[in-house]
Amino acid sequence: MSRTRVVLDESEIPTHWYNIAADLTTPPLPPLGGDGNPVSPEQMLAIFPGPVLEQEMSAERWIAIPEEVRKIYALWRPSPLCRAERLEQMLGTPAKIFYKYEGVSPAGSHKPNSAVPQAYLNKIAGTKRLITETGAGQWGSSLSFAGQCFGLPVEIYMVKVSFNQKPYRRLMMQTWGGDVVASPSERTKTGRDILAADPNNPGSLGIAISEAIEAVVSNPGSKYALGSVLNHVLLHQTVIGLEAKKQFEKIGEYPDMMFAPCGGGCNFAGAVFPFLGDAAAGDKRAQKIRMVAVEPASCPTLTKGVYAYDYGDASGFTPMMKMYTLGHDFMPPGIHAGGLRYHGDSPLISQLYHEKLIEAVAVPQTATFEAGVMFARAEGIIPAPESAHGIRACIDEALRCKASGEPKTLFFNLSGHGHFDMAAYENYFSGNMQDFAYSDEDLQKSLKTLPNVDWPPKAA
Amino acid sequence: MSRTRVVLDESEIPTHWYNIAADLTTPPLPPLGGDGNPVSPEQMLAIFPGPVLEQEMSAERWIAIPEEVRKIYALWRPSPLCRAERLEQMLGTPAKIFYKYEGVSPAGSHKPNSAVPQAYLNKIAGTKRLITETGAGQWGSSLSFAGQCFGLPVEIYMVKVSFNQKPYRRLMMQTWGGDVVASPSERTKTGRDILAADPNNPGSLGIAISEAIEAVVSNPGSKYALGSVLNHVLLHQTVIGLEAKKQFEKIGEYPDMMFAPCGGGCNFAGAVFPFLGDAAAGDKRAQKIRMVAVEPASCPTLTKGVYAYDYGDASGFTPMMKMYTLGHDFMPPGIHAGGLRYHGDSPLISQLYHEKLIEAVAVPQTATFEAGVMFARAEGIIPAPESAHGIRACIDEALRCKASGEPKTLFFNLSGHGHFDMAAYENYFSGNMQDFAYSDEDLQKSLKTLPNVDWPPKAA
Repeated sequence: MSRTRVVLDESEIPTHWYNIAADLTTPPLPPLGGDGNPVSPEQMLAIFPGPVLEQEMSAERWIAIPEEVRKIYALWRPSPLCRAERLEQMLGTPAKIFYKYEGVSPAGSHKPNSAVPQAYLNKIAGTKRLITETGAGQWGSSLSFAGQCFGLPVEIYMVKVSFNQKPYRRLMMQTWGGDVVASPSERTKTGRDILAADPNNPGSLGIAISEAIEAVVSNPGSKYALGSVLNHVLLHQTVIGLEAKKQFEKIGEYPDMMFAPCGGGCNFAGAVFPFLGDAAAGDKRAQKIRMVAVEPASCPTLTKGVYAYDYGDASGFTPMMKMYTLGHDFMPPGIHAGGLRYHGDSPLISQLYHEKLIEAVAVPQTATFEAGVMFARAEGIIPAPESAHGIRACIDEALRCKASGEPKTLFFNLSGHGHFDMAAYENYFSGNMQDFAYSDEDLQKSLKTLPNVDWPPKAA
Repeated sequence: MSRTRVVLDESEIPTHWYNIAADLTTPPLPPLGGDGNPVSPEQMLAIFPGPVLEQEMSAERWIAIPEEVRKIYALWRPSPLCRAERLEQMLGTPAKIFYKYEGVSPAGSHKPNSAVPQAYLNKIAGTKRLITETGAGQWGSSLSFAGQCFGLPVEIYMVKVSFNQKPYRRLMMQTWGGDVVASPSERTKTGRDILAADPNNPGSLGIAISEAIEAVVSNPGSKYALGSVLNHVLLHQTVIGLEAKKQFEKIGEYPDMMFAPCGGGCNFAGAVFPFLGDAAAGDKRAQKIRMVAVEPASCPTLTKGVYAYDYGDASGFTPMMKMYTLGHDFMPPGIHAGGLRYHGDSPLISQLYHEKLIEAVAVPQTATFEAGVMFARAEGIIPAPESAHGIRACIDEALRCKASGEPKTLFFNLSGHGHFDMAAYENYFSGNMQDFAYSDEDLQKSLKTLPNVDWPPKAA
């Protein structure tokens, strides 16, 4: 029997996260406040606890994973590295296809890899309540689970239209003890003002963020937790790539190309950063890997955006970060891969892309579902719509290998399962799925709203 | 870090299934036809293919698992054996709690363990189309996946009310290429007759079975596949217990008590039969294990039923089998654990229970959901309502251990996750969940409908 799944013992869960900030050729650029100056640690401490901020700003290459976090990771980690041999046969490609499966976590995606350490670091810092927002509910459910692990209450502002239309993820949060409220809510002034003006307001991610931040600032002992984009989130996700390296080593294989979906960028970063670390340390094989971030054609941040300082959120509440962006008020079409509908990209990934250390490709919606169904029929697992983006790009490469005869070794990060996304598959099977294009006119308009700042500041 | 999950390499997937028929003190009793005589192999061959029937009737102790089946098993097997240490701490029990997690399969339950070999055996027997019925969709989705693995078309008659109310499992079947039709359908005479009389008939499992059997009989090359109850289904599930034995051995532990939910009985059988085999072979430790089948208080087949010949289905289409039964027209209340709403029990399990080699207990619905939520909060995984029955009984024992101070080693089979059952959790959280009792009057009435046959025949 040939090798299908490479499993590791729980003693092989990494003991340290890999921090790519230590290996960048130029130091990461600071987040800027409204005045155009770097945000002070004091300002950040109002939102995040000390131990999280310390990781956010660290330049240490290796950061120890607390034993308490490794114990929770052990509920599902190490995740398997799988050979998609049946998919290879279906495609008739000479390429070998491997994937790391992160859907084995309780929440069904890679998100708990960061939710758990964030809950732990908040707990030891004395945080009394974690507050966050969620759209479709992937992050909210992961943080509810993580808070439950350490006895830390979690409050989630969930966009009202999702709260009503996607009750299952809301119920997951409640099962793990999360306090979920439909946003706009009566709990914050922001919410009350909006409801007074329009009791039927369906909510938006921007409103939910603003309610969550108001709740943090006005409730002493509360802190905020974010599920992507920031350095510490990407750091936590490196357990994925660190495990993958051990697994490839066990079977004497090594990737020529790596693919992962990229919205905020945390699952892409988690998979590829440890290999970039090897490349930085002089590993010739690692230097040859082509690493491809896969984004939706309707929200093509890396492939069509600009590298500039912009707000992290649509409403301009957050600090400005230097990143690839479509403009903070770019409104992506309502694709099913909600986790990839983000106008920006993590500053770390943006810098690596700017320095041409990684590549990016954009794929249309229908083609990703076609790839998702193909994968499900070959390998069993029904992938999340976000994850199907990585599969699509990997299949496209496998088909190029078929044409050229190249026996490349391909890898993709299967970030989660699609059990809570079956309505999206229904839309695909109905034949009514649309391939939204971004509007170039809208893009030009939203790019005009970019704040006119940079770091170091331009001479006046 | 203490041991949380015991994983095995795919080379450790069992090479043989264990057939308990070889170790019974008296041979299993035959299924009987309407005339009171054993059903002939020819009659069975109209429904099942030769290689499946061979396993159904075999008295060989070990039956080789075809390499093609082991390759598909390797997509998710061996499944992990986990220590529920956080649950132990939550309960404050001196007991050790272990569970085998079958929710890692593509369909999310133990059902593919039998769907895959059934599809394979049909494929090599030349079957052109597999036909089955499904209620909530667990079995239909598993068989769709299995058929896809071997390029064998699968046709599923899904009870219409579930088809409309539970679209996600239907969509899973479609994702794997299954041909799902709402029953009653226009495809069979049975369906057409019912629709002619009542176009809005919501369907029932009895109607779906009868449509599926009609479709098999009237379409040459078609065969039927069943997801529980029969000997070969229980045989296939023994991979669960065979793996668990290896896993316990690796960590030097051994169960004092084993729990599993029991409807038709296949997941209970899968977990405990290999240990019963050891007991039959003279293993003193195995002889001491208490094995507890857990059933819903509203459908208490083993604990309140009688041991008699009865039809396997509500409508009396199938042969009669000697089993614990509540009477084939007993209508269990609409509990959320649809997989446990069965009036009978597998003949093998019934015989073992009759011979007092296994025990049974019945638990009420609300208490099972309480246990399910407790488990999810401790261990992360949200269990299926069926699986929560085993958890409930295991927790009850762990609490008895707390009272008595006994450090027992407890095991339960976590047969699947609850990702497609979140509406049931909503019902629990709403506070409106009911603890249906079976009606003693209904039971007495349905027991009166038992066919008056036995084997060997009573003297006239």
